[in-house]
Amino acid sequence: MIGGGPGAFIGDAHRRASRICNDYELVGGVFSSNSEKNTQFAVNEGIDLSRCYSGVESLIEAEKALPANKRMEAVAIVTPNALHYSAARMLLENGFHIVCEKPMTMTVEEALELEEIVNQTKLTFALAHTYTGYPMVRQMRDLISQGILGTIQRIDAQYYQGWINSFIHGTESRITGVWRLDPRHAGVSSCMGDIGVHAFNLIEYTTGLEIREILSDLSRVKDNIKLDLDGTVLLRFGGYLKGVIRASQVCGGEENGITIAVYGSRASLKWAQENPNYLYMLSDTEPTRVFKPAHDYNGKFAEISHTMPPGHPEGIYEALANIYRGAAKSIRGEEFIPGEFPTVHEGVRGMKFIHAVVNSDANGNVWTKV
Amino acid sequence: MIGGGPGAFIGDAHRRASRICNDYELVGGVFSSNSEKNTQFAVNEGIDLSRCYSGVESLIEAEKALPANKRMEAVAIVTPNALHYSAARMLLENGFHIVCEKPMTMTVEEALELEEIVNQTKLTFALAHTYTGYPMVRQMRDLISQGILGTIQRIDAQYYQGWINSFIHGTESRITGVWRLDPRHAGVSSCMGDIGVHAFNLIEYTTGLEIREILSDLSRVKDNIKLDLDGTVLLRFGGYLKGVIRASQVCGGEENGITIAVYGSRASLKWAQENPNYLYMLSDTEPTRVFKPAHDYNGKFAEISHTMPPGHPEGIYEALANIYRGAAKSIRGEEFIPGEFPTVHEGVRGMKFIHAVVNSDANGNVWTKV
Amino acid sequence: MIGGGPGAFIGDAHRRASRICNDYELVGGVFSSNSEKNTQFAVNEGIDLSRCYSGVESLIEAEKALPANKRMEAVAIVTPNALHYSAARMLLENGFHIVCEKPMTMTVEEALELEEIVNQTKLTFALAHTYTGYPMVRQMRDLISQGILGTIQRIDAQYYQGWINSFIHGTESRITGVWRLDPRHAGVSSCMGDIGVHAFNLIEYTTGLEIREILSDLSRVKDNIKLDLDGTVLLRFGGYLKGVIRASQVCGGEENGITIAVYGSRASLKWAQENPNYLYMLSDTEPTRVFKPAHDYNGKFAEISHTMPPGHPEGIYEALANIYRGAAKSIRGEEFIPGEFPTVHEGVRGMKFIHAVVNSDANGNVWTKV
Amino acid sequence: MIGGGPGAFIGDAHRRASRICNDYELVGGVFSSNSEKNTQFAVNEGIDLSRCYSGVESLIEAEKALPANKRMEAVAIVTPNALHYSAARMLLENGFHIVCEKPMTMTVEEALELEEIVNQTKLTFALAHTYTGYPMVRQMRDLISQGILGTIQRIDAQYYQGWINSFIHGTESRITGVWRLDPRHAGVSSCMGDIGVHAFNLIEYTTGLEIREILSDLSRVKDNIKLDLDGTVLLRFGGYLKGVIRASQVCGGEENGITIAVYGSRASLKWAQENPNYLYMLSDTEPTRVFKPAHDYNGKFAEISHTMPPGHPEGIYEALANIYRGAAKSIRGEEFIPGEFPTVHEGVRGMKFIHAVVNSDANGNVWTKV
Repeated sequence: MIGGGPGAFIGDAHRRASRICNDYELVGGVFSSNSEKNTQFAVNEGIDLSRCYSGVESLIEAEKALPANKRMEAVAIVTPNALHYSAARMLLENGFHIVCEKPMTMTVEEALELEEIVNQTKLTFALAHTYTGYPMVRQMRDLISQGILGTIQRIDAQYYQGWINSFIHGTESRITGVWRLDPRHAGVSSCMGDIGVHAFNLIEYTTGLEIREILSDLSRVKDNIKLDLDGTVLLRFGGYLKGVIRASQVCGGEENGITIAVYGSRASLKWAQENPNYLYMLSDTEPTRVFKPAHDYNGKFAEISHTMPPGHPEGIYEALANIYRGAAKSIRGEEFIPGEFPTVHEGVRGMKFIHAVVNSDANGNVWTKV
Repeated sequence: MIGGGPGAFIGDAHRRASRICNDYELVGGVFSSNSEKNTQFAVNEGIDLSRCYSGVESLIEAEKALPANKRMEAVAIVTPNALHYSAARMLLENGFHIVCEKPMTMTVEEALELEEIVNQTKLTFALAHTYTGYPMVRQMRDLISQGILGTIQRIDAQYYQGWINSFIHGTESRITGVWRLDPRHAGVSSCMGDIGVHAFNLIEYTTGLEIREILSDLSRVKDNIKLDLDGTVLLRFGGYLKGVIRASQVCGGEENGITIAVYGSRASLKWAQENPNYLYMLSDTEPTRVFKPAHDYNGKFAEISHTMPPGHPEGIYEALANIYRGAAKSIRGEEFIPGEFPTVHEGVRGMKFIHAVVNSDANGNVWTKV
Repeated sequence: MIGGGPGAFIGDAHRRASRICNDYELVGGVFSSNSEKNTQFAVNEGIDLSRCYSGVESLIEAEKALPANKRMEAVAIVTPNALHYSAARMLLENGFHIVCEKPMTMTVEEALELEEIVNQTKLTFALAHTYTGYPMVRQMRDLISQGILGTIQRIDAQYYQGWINSFIHGTESRITGVWRLDPRHAGVSSCMGDIGVHAFNLIEYTTGLEIREILSDLSRVKDNIKLDLDGTVLLRFGGYLKGVIRASQVCGGEENGITIAVYGSRASLKWAQENPNYLYMLSDTEPTRVFKPAHDYNGKFAEISHTMPPGHPEGIYEALANIYRGAAKSIRGEEFIPGEFPTVHEGVRGMKFIHAVVNSDANGNVWTKV
Repeated sequence: MIGGGPGAFIGDAHRRASRICNDYELVGGVFSSNSEKNTQFAVNEGIDLSRCYSGVESLIEAEKALPANKRMEAVAIVTPNALHYSAARMLLENGFHIVCEKPMTMTVEEALELEEIVNQTKLTFALAHTYTGYPMVRQMRDLISQGILGTIQRIDAQYYQGWINSFIHGTESRITGVWRLDPRHAGVSSCMGDIGVHAFNLIEYTTGLEIREILSDLSRVKDNIKLDLDGTVLLRFGGYLKGVIRASQVCGGEENGITIAVYGSRASLKWAQENPNYLYMLSDTEPTRVFKPAHDYNGKFAEISHTMPPGHPEGIYEALANIYRGAAKSIRGEEFIPGEFPTVHEGVRGMKFIHAVVNSDANGNVWTKV
């Protein structure tokens, strides 16, 4: 693991998920750029200090010196965004499989480079679009791929949060303390880069469609903010199909309000992350149907993604564990279902989306290719 | 009543609402352009045939000939859109109060004319934006007017329906049978004119803010459709405040899916029409609060808008009855709370919105003043 | 109308409902035992003072003197419980149809007498078990009668309210001010007589089954209360089928929390009054289905009980109006669907239930026949 | 670990939970009575075969021979019910801490014996009443202990499932294949022993009250079933406080429908397991409040029980992991919050409840002390 030291919530999430799926063992890593914290963390986690490295280079060197059956096979990258690319590149070039937090890189170019390396090396690269690990998101993908919805006529995805309010309405120093608001660490976007891209990914993941063009209108909300905290993105998929992504970090009281609705000529599907075990199928002529995990009426993909009997809710750690499980199958060369883990290609698509959105807004809200 | 003869659902709704509020008696009208149906309807409703008129002109002439205390005081206009303007104009000019279905007119110019006449005559003109009659919509307006939300940072309104699917995916003759799809009867817009305008109205009604500029992207969904059936509208209110209206008639399985969310720096409010007796107040620091009718914790406006004890759901007829009640107070010269009925001004705003949306889309998705 | 004068909420509800269904006209009655209030009420409602009577006897005498086509046809009895029986009896014996609030009488014997008179006179007697007027309750009855659930295995009904808390935890005088807590006006029971009986009625109404035996445990909650405010009733239907009714007036914060669940070997149905337009069909092998009004997938009974298009919520006034409509059909000798209005027989069953529950508790929680 | 070999869902759940909390390592056990399966399981899990034992006795002998710092510290017992007691007893007597599935034993006497041993040895004994590990259940306990509800006036808990339908309505051999329906393996009760006891435990856990007396009515549902599959239990807590537990395994379509509602004179609390991250506080005078995890408004106990930011749902594995974490603190001698894990005392209470319920029913539905 690279990053994820003391206090890093996302690193902890990755470790829990990998333990749940039980295909991984945490044997070493670079947990913090602060040497003391790095060591302390390794001690706390019971990791052999000889494998607690000061940097990615030394990790690579030392691990490659180990016999193949002792060597680290895969590395999870859970650092701030700006460090993803260089770490991923070096690791891939030295034969390590990767599980990477999103957004994958800072630029589209970096993303394309990683994609090329992955394609050449045939290594496994899993991107942590965690929401694709929920059983009912996978069931949604399954149902859509079967053509049950008829012609898709509208797509609407939302990602609303409110957590940033307490920072932006606080003191100036409180604002500067948030790395997501600093372009050097967060890249070109806060809201769209952090959460809008999840909505984008969910749309392409569940429908199998590509968003062709977008037109965005973003808001910084306050004068002293440098990046977007809020925005709406008009979507075109070609033909008459249109849609919208709505994302915001200033929707006070919204917690992690991700929703997706795909409306077809014959039926429609709706899902919301805060109650992830419910998938609603709407129809003009039938009662609404509510799909839940652990039932034979679901497809195989949903069913391998839930382990408890019906009515025992699993949550976000299990979703991420499902992605880790999918990556493990790929690493071991086992068969897996396409979509069991988001790939480097989803990472490229995400970066293209983020940059298209920022450009559309900067250029006066014009249609921009993804 | 003008219109609303046999089989007209909206006319029936108006009659029920007026009976619920009990301030009106249906004494006559022009119920159908078909003479036989017109008469038959009057007979069924127990209306004196001498007051069952063949047209608005004869109604005006005959009623004005009656002594003041026998004369019709107010007229409900529930015809197809294209007939609203001429009927309303004649009736206003002859001293009748009006309750009018929306959209108020076919053009902005007609709307402005009606506004001018109303302003001059001081007659009561109530527009049937029924959703403003719900107690919890009124409570929302109350809470926002008190400044409880802090600075408003984002507004999101939705109106999704799916009923038109069965027509547009049917035979050609089935399409031509729907007057909403025919520009001669429906005006410049189907989706935005019929339902998008409700979302627009709810935003201005609950927040007291004016939408300044919009940018829209509409879809006709199929080649042989002449009007928009679907669209997204970006909103600007001035300053950093932005928002979005999403409306569609092709969201299969959605029934009457109106929602509004207003997000502020201190708290947020969410309401959905299909469960109209719940108003959600979100906050980053407090548990979500659910307001319901018939409680002392509500303001006076909500409380006069609900008659049953808590937990006895009232519905859409009662919402419309609340508007009829407000108009009755105005007609009788009694005091009423601003917002007890939508006025001709809301009608003007709505027409401006519809035309701005259609123009923005036609001009290549450009910002357009409302 | 007998009763329902100034300030009486239930009388107002009956008048609204009768206006909604539009088959009735309020022409006279005895609105209050206080002569001044009686007259004032008639004036306010625009009722001819010659038909504002001082008592049931004078009403009967005067109305019978009128020609048949001018005479009152039906009388709504909305007085406190203790007066129902004598008024109903006199009116029935003089040829008037009745709509009566529940509970129908004070004793089982009175109830049986009314039943006998109704059977002999063939007059229409409708009991205001309002919840049977909801479209989805009627759909539930329909589905069960078709045998869709398989063998019914468990039935669970609830009626929880909390409104009485503010009285019983107030001063002594506040308690004595509530007629429901006074055995002279309320009869042998407060909670079970007022609300438990609705849960009982819903079970027998939706399933068509008769509850044979009950065992109850009631609570008065405080020393100075004379009647039950809370209780649980075990139910036996014969064979292995059992169930439970839970009712309480001290569930603080519950508003009008009526629910019913009927569990069968093949499927189950659940309904809750506070969201009355949703009926849930559960199954072990299929996604949960949500039935809503105004759809062709419903049976005829549900569909004649809802007038708006899908997604426009109707509420409790419309439910009561549906019962008034059913009674009107019966009065006019038109065909109606069994169950369109609760009859005197449901009144008898209710009184038997209330008395069985009180006796079971008083006798030490023993099984008691209904 | 004792039990939990191939195909055992509950053993898998315990392993996942222990990995999530990360305070345990699975080093050995007796996974199956079938020697081959036992070995195979150890191989699959990567467990040293020298610690894959054939029985509890050999486990104890071998582990005690190891140096203290290598020795197994705690043992999870996840066998069928009938084997809990003997394993737990032997392990406790030899100094092993225990995490035990529920019901703890087959008889009250066995339960009392275990309690005595635990009291004498001061070892940690954690019972897997998993639902007590949910953050919002803990918040409920916190709020009630602070007296926020006023005087508690009614308690209502439910546990409805439907999974057994497919067995009991199948062939005879299908029935005999379910160990829960066999008194030799399940003990005196199926429904109450397996799930009713969870409802019982939740009541005592959240309120801190003891149920004094119960009266039950159980149903076997079909002639060829030997144990209860369904039942209702009337509860008395002393004074006027009463309540009810409803439990069933034949509520078709219910999945894992656990609910608890505690009604007080000032406020009430409601929680349902299938949406475990919502806790509802009702009041007659305030809007309903919805508590969710990861907020400062919660007490400390809820907050240490959730690790993700708001809006990221955690589920049942995390609930069980919280119990494992609590037990780990106790084993290590660290401070913990009372209630962080259910103890042997809750096990004794549960066994008393199950036997009281069965006896009350067998004796003709009479009041029985718990």
